[in-house]
Amino acid sequence: MKLFEELQQVLAADRVTMNDTILDQHSSDESYHKPHSPDIVVFPESADEMSNIMKLANKYKMPVTPFGLGSSLEGNAIPYEGGISVDFSLMNKVLEVRQDDFLVKVQPGVTRSQLDKELKKYGLFFSVDPGADATLGGMAATNASGTTAVRYGIMRDQVRDMEVVLADGTVIHTGNMAAKSSSGYHLNGLFVGSEGTLGCFTELTLKVIGIPEHIMAARAEFGSVDDAVNGVIAILQAGIPVARVELVDEQSIKQMNHFSDTNYNEVPTLFLEFHGNEAGLQQDVEFMKEIVEDINCQKIEFESDTAARNQLWEARHNAAYAYIHGHPGRKQMVTDVCVPISELAGAVKDAREAVDESGLSGGIVGHVGDGNYHILLMIDVDDPAEIEKANVVNERIVDYALARGGTCTGEHGVGTGKQKYQAREHGESLVVMQKIKQALDPGGVLNPGKIV
Amino acid sequence: MKLFEELQQVLAADRVTMNDTILDQHSSDESYHKPHSPDIVVFPESADEMSNIMKLANKYKMPVTPFGLGSSLEGNAIPYEGGISVDFSLMNKVLEVRQDDFLVKVQPGVTRSQLDKELKKYGLFFSVDPGADATLGGMAATNASGTTAVRYGIMRDQVRDMEVVLADGTVIHTGNMAAKSSSGYHLNGLFVGSEGTLGCFTELTLKVIGIPEHIMAARAEFGSVDDAVNGVIAILQAGIPVARVELVDEQSIKQMNHFSDTNYNEVPTLFLEFHGNEAGLQQDVEFMKEIVEDINCQKIEFESDTAARNQLWEARHNAAYAYIHGHPGRKQMVTDVCVPISELAGAVKDAREAVDESGLSGGIVGHVGDGNYHILLMIDVDDPAEIEKANVVNERIVDYALARGGTCTGEHGVGTGKQKYQAREHGESLVVMQKIKQALDPGGVLNPGKIV
Repeated sequence: MKLFEELQQVLAADRVTMNDTILDQHSSDESYHKPHSPDIVVFPESADEMSNIMKLANKYKMPVTPFGLGSSLEGNAIPYEGGISVDFSLMNKVLEVRQDDFLVKVQPGVTRSQLDKELKKYGLFFSVDPGADATLGGMAATNASGTTAVRYGIMRDQVRDMEVVLADGTVIHTGNMAAKSSSGYHLNGLFVGSEGTLGCFTELTLKVIGIPEHIMAARAEFGSVDDAVNGVIAILQAGIPVARVELVDEQSIKQMNHFSDTNYNEVPTLFLEFHGNEAGLQQDVEFMKEIVEDINCQKIEFESDTAARNQLWEARHNAAYAYIHGHPGRKQMVTDVCVPISELAGAVKDAREAVDESGLSGGIVGHVGDGNYHILLMIDVDDPAEIEKANVVNERIVDYALARGGTCTGEHGVGTGKQKYQAREHGESLVVMQKIKQALDPGGVLNPGKIV
Repeated sequence: MKLFEELQQVLAADRVTMNDTILDQHSSDESYHKPHSPDIVVFPESADEMSNIMKLANKYKMPVTPFGLGSSLEGNAIPYEGGISVDFSLMNKVLEVRQDDFLVKVQPGVTRSQLDKELKKYGLFFSVDPGADATLGGMAATNASGTTAVRYGIMRDQVRDMEVVLADGTVIHTGNMAAKSSSGYHLNGLFVGSEGTLGCFTELTLKVIGIPEHIMAARAEFGSVDDAVNGVIAILQAGIPVARVELVDEQSIKQMNHFSDTNYNEVPTLFLEFHGNEAGLQQDVEFMKEIVEDINCQKIEFESDTAARNQLWEARHNAAYAYIHGHPGRKQMVTDVCVPISELAGAVKDAREAVDESGLSGGIVGHVGDGNYHILLMIDVDDPAEIEKANVVNERIVDYALARGGTCTGEHGVGTGKQKYQAREHGESLVVMQKIKQALDPGGVLNPGKIV
C-alpha cells in the first residue's frame, strides 16, 4: 500500500493501478500458460519514471515484469511472483527516422505495424515480422524473428542501441549508432533476448532497410511436407537469396482458408518471396522454379501484384490466430525448435509422427529457411490428460532438436515454458548466465523465475 | 619456476618455454604499442590442456593472455602484466565442414587464408577479411571485420558457437548450430570481442557462404576524397547491395603502387565489388555507374577477370604493409573510428585536417560502406614529440566520432590503445561490463588491464 502511494508520487495517480480488470489484463499472454496477476500495474512515460519505479521496487523488494502487448507465447511477461507489471503502452512514439543512416529510434511500446506505417513514408521498412503485431520492446526482449530472418536476420541483428533501465535504476545505453563496433563488451546482444531479467528497455535504435525495388511472392504446392522441406533445402543450397520461405502444411492451409477468406489448395505449400532489382529477381525466380520442379513441386503461382501479395502474407501471419479462431475455448501450445538445416527434414518428420501418436490435432508452419518450425497444438487447458499429451509432444520435439545441435526456442524465448530445457541445452553455460544475472540484478527483482 | 614445472606436466616439456626469443616473439603486435614480455609461453593442443593451464594460472595467480599471430593493432595480445602467453598456433585444424548447413568448425589457430583454401573445395567462402592473415580465434577475440562487412556482416555475425575455457578452467559452449536461437543469454555475442578477458576460445563454429555465381570488381576514381565519400553514400542510399566498397586516398594508392606492383592512377579511389546472379549484377553495376558519374567520378574500370580482381584486393589488403614497407624503422598508428554514415563525409574531412595540422604524413583507407575508416600514421616510436602529435590526431578523430554517435574502434578492438576512451564512450555501461568481468573472472587472471 505504501509502495502504491509512492509509485503514484513518482508517476501520476492515474498511471498506477490495482484495478482488477487491468490486473487481469496483465496476468496472461497468448499461450496456454497459467495466468498469474501482478499486484500493481504501472504505465511509465519516460526512462526517468522507469528508473524511479526500479528504485521503489528495490526498496520494497517487489518483482518487476515488463509488459508490451501480451502477445508472448511462453509466459514471458506473466508475473508469476506478482509485484509490478510495467505496461509500456504509453511509451509508443517513433522518436526519429534517420533516413540517411537507415536507423530509427523508437519507444518500446511502438508496435511493428505502427513502425512500418511510419517508415513507408521514407521508402523504408523494418524487417522483423512475428505473427503478432507485437511491440518493438517485446520483440527485443524475446529476440523475436519471423518470415524474413532468412534474408535480413533476427531482432538481435537489428538493434544498434538501447536505453535500458537496470535493476538499481541506473539508465545505460547498450550501443551506439555506428554500423559496427569493437569497443567494450557487446551489451546490445546480451540485453536483446533477456526477457526483462536484466533490465527494462525504454528506447531502441533499430536498423531499417530500403523497400526493395522489386518484390515477387510465390506459392509452391507439394505432394508432401517432406518434398516441401527438400524444396527449401535445395533453394538454399543453390544460393538463391530468398527473402522469405515459409512452410504451411495441409491442415494449416485449411485453417487459413477459413479464417482469411483465401482459397488456396489444401496441400503442403511453401510461401516464398524474392527481393531485388528487376533483372536479378527474374533470374532468381526462374532458377527457383527449375529447382522446385525437380523436387516434385506440383504447382507454382506467382503474386507480383501488391494486394495479392499482402493477402498472402497476412494469411500467413494470421495462421496462429486462424487456429485459435477455429478451436473456440481451447488454448494454443506452439513448439518452437530450430535445427541445423541438414536436420530439418528429419525433425519435421519426427514431429509429425509425435503429433500423430499423441492423438492430438496439430498443424505445422515454419520459417523453414532458418530450420525453425512450429507445431500448433490447440489444447483444452482444463483437461490435464490433454496438457500431458501436448507436453510429451513438445518434449520429444525438443529432445530431437537438442540431440542434433539445435535449440529449444528459435524465436519465442524461454519464458516459463522452455525453462526446464535450459540446463540441458546450455550445460555449464547456464552457470555463466546465472552469474551475469546475479551480477546485474543481485536482488532478483527483474522478472524473477525466468530464463536463469 | 614451480608453475613452469607444473605446466610442463600438464602439457609437454617442449610446449612450455621461457626461451628468450620466443618470449620476445610474444611481447608485441603489429602496432606502435610498447612491447612487454610474458614470463612463459605455452602451446596447448586441446581444450583440456587449456583448462589445465587456467587452473594452474589460478593457483599461482598468474595472468593469462591468449595469442594468435600477433597481428593485432591495439596491443590486444601484449601481456602487460607478464604471466603466461597462450600461443594457439598448434591448434590449427579445420575440424569439420558442414556443407549443407553452411557451417565450419575450426580450431582458433586456423588463419583466414588457410580456411579459405579449405572452403574453396566446397564452393564456399568465409566472408570476414581483415588486412592481416589473422587467426580465426584472434578475429573473434577482437570482433574483426574487413572489406565485406557492408554486405555479409562482422565477425560476431558469423559465430554460431564457441568452445570457451573460462577463468576457472570450466569448458563451455556459447551457442549451437541452429541459424537462430532465443534460448538463454547471448553468450556468443558477449565472448566475441572480449579480447581474452572473459575466456580463451578453443573451437569456433562459423557461418560460411556459397561463392557467388558472379563477381565484378571496379575501381572508381574521383577528384577528391569528399567526392569519393559522397559516391559511397549515394550508392548505399540507392539500395545497391554492394559487397565491398573501400576508400583509398591518393597517398595510399601511391604506397600500394610501390609495394604491390600496381599502376593505378594516384587519385582518391573507391574499390568496389558486386556479387549476384549474372542479370542482377549487370543491373547493379549499370546503376552504380550512373550514380557515381553524377558525383563527379572521373573514371571507372571494371575487373571481372579473377586474376585482376585478386590483384586489386591483395593490393588493398596489403595497404597497411605497404606503408610499413615504405617507412623503414617506423611503426604504425592506425585510427579506427566508425561513425553513422551521415557523419562520414564530415568525419573524413576533419580527420584530413587533423593530420595536415599535425605535420605528420598519413593516408586514409577505409571500409566506408560501414562508416569505418583508418588514418595510417607512420611514426618514430623513439621520438616522444612525434608520438604526442599522433596521439593528438587520434584523440581529435575519436572525439569527433563519439560526439556524433560513433565508436572509438570499428574493428581493431580496445586493447591498450582505446582503453582511455572506454569510460567516455560507454558511460554507465562500462560499470555493467566491469560487473560481468568481475563475475566471470573474479581473480582477474584473464588478459588483465584490457577493455574494462
